[in-house]
Amino acid sequence: MEFSSKLLESAVYEVSQLPGIGKRTALRLVLHLLRQPESQTTNLASSLLTLKTEVKFCKSCHNISDVELCEICANPKRQEKLVCVVEDIRDVMAIENTGQYRGIYHVLGGKISPMDGIGPLDLNIATLVEKVKEGKVDEIIFALSSTMEGDTTNFYIFKQLEPYKVVTSTIARGIAVGDELEYADEVTLGRSILHRIPFENSLKSD
Amino acid sequence: MEFSSKLLESAVYEVSQLPGIGKRTALRLVLHLLRQPESQTTNLASSLLTLKTEVKFCKSCHNISDVELCEICANPKRQEKLVCVVEDIRDVMAIENTGQYRGIYHVLGGKISPMDGIGPLDLNIATLVEKVKEGKVDEIIFALSSTMEGDTTNFYIFKQLEPYKVVTSTIARGIAVGDELEYADEVTLGRSILHRIPFENSLKSD
Repeated sequence: MEFSSKLLESAVYEVSQLPGIGKRTALRLVLHLLRQPESQTTNLASSLLTLKTEVKFCKSCHNISDVELCEICANPKRQEKLVCVVEDIRDVMAIENTGQYRGIYHVLGGKISPMDGIGPLDLNIATLVEKVKEGKVDEIIFALSSTMEGDTTNFYIFKQLEPYKVVTSTIARGIAVGDELEYADEVTLGRSILHRIPFENSLKSD
Repeated sequence: MEFSSKLLESAVYEVSQLPGIGKRTALRLVLHLLRQPESQTTNLASSLLTLKTEVKFCKSCHNISDVELCEICANPKRQEKLVCVVEDIRDVMAIENTGQYRGIYHVLGGKISPMDGIGPLDLNIATLVEKVKEGKVDEIIFALSSTMEGDTTNFYIFKQLEPYKVVTSTIARGIAVGDELEYADEVTLGRSILHRIPFENSLKSD
């Protein structure tokens, strides 16, 4: 793409550095901002800068938070000995939305992925092991997505926790509620038969 | 969506104001920026702000330009009496990419669209009429997309130019090169038959 303006070119370049946004989309977004009142651009720029420079993470679970101890960790009604290990804040939000979980979280900040140069030391694993070591945890629930990176991360943490007395579990994999059996992939269907549960348990909705 | 951080919420909100970007995508983009070095966020913010505050438009064709008279208008090799009317810079870039056009442009900055509150006075139409009035234009080529808004805009400008001696033309509509006839829509196919050209003309590639 050849631009008639260096300013435009540099703005489009920076926007196209975002994941999933190509040069064409970036140009569309930038032209949109040019047509809007200046306040929209200043608000966008300042909110991103403020977040980047002032973002804090909960000292206990590492979730993004404006205060030292996040709302979930600080809530006395949550079971603090039940810890759900997730990748990032999106998973926390998804699980919170179900309204089914009363424990706390531990946000790793990613998954082990040698391809992307992310090793165990780049993730918040040491603080989790420390918590377990100090006897603060009864059960750990692994809730990472079941990809190769997710499974590797689960297994790495599982190995680190072996010396300590802690129950480890993983969220159930199976056919999604409302899905047709014939369209399910074989691995999921296979697991859902292998890990079947007593019928009377399925009658409880909570 | 409930956020654990007001800073995060406000950044996601601002990003989701961009066209075609919902809350989920906005969250994904913001989390990506959080994982990247701070320079990426500062570069993004400053390039957008600089563009918004310092953007200039060519005084002749209204295209985005860093200088008073854009490269195309300032080029003595371009036919300055042949003017192609387009909606925005993306159309200029698309036509320039073909390498087939040697005239200059006139960028309207949009199309007449009462639904979006855009009337003729919001577009760069007066300066075009002025140019024609002063006898600076031999031919005007309308190259707006053929939607209702595009057709309305073409017709409005055409009416404004009626008192003056100027040739007006519109880009050819027809079956795209390489497309199969059977998949073409009826309007396009109909027009391509109505506006057929002498076969020997189709043999010239330039």
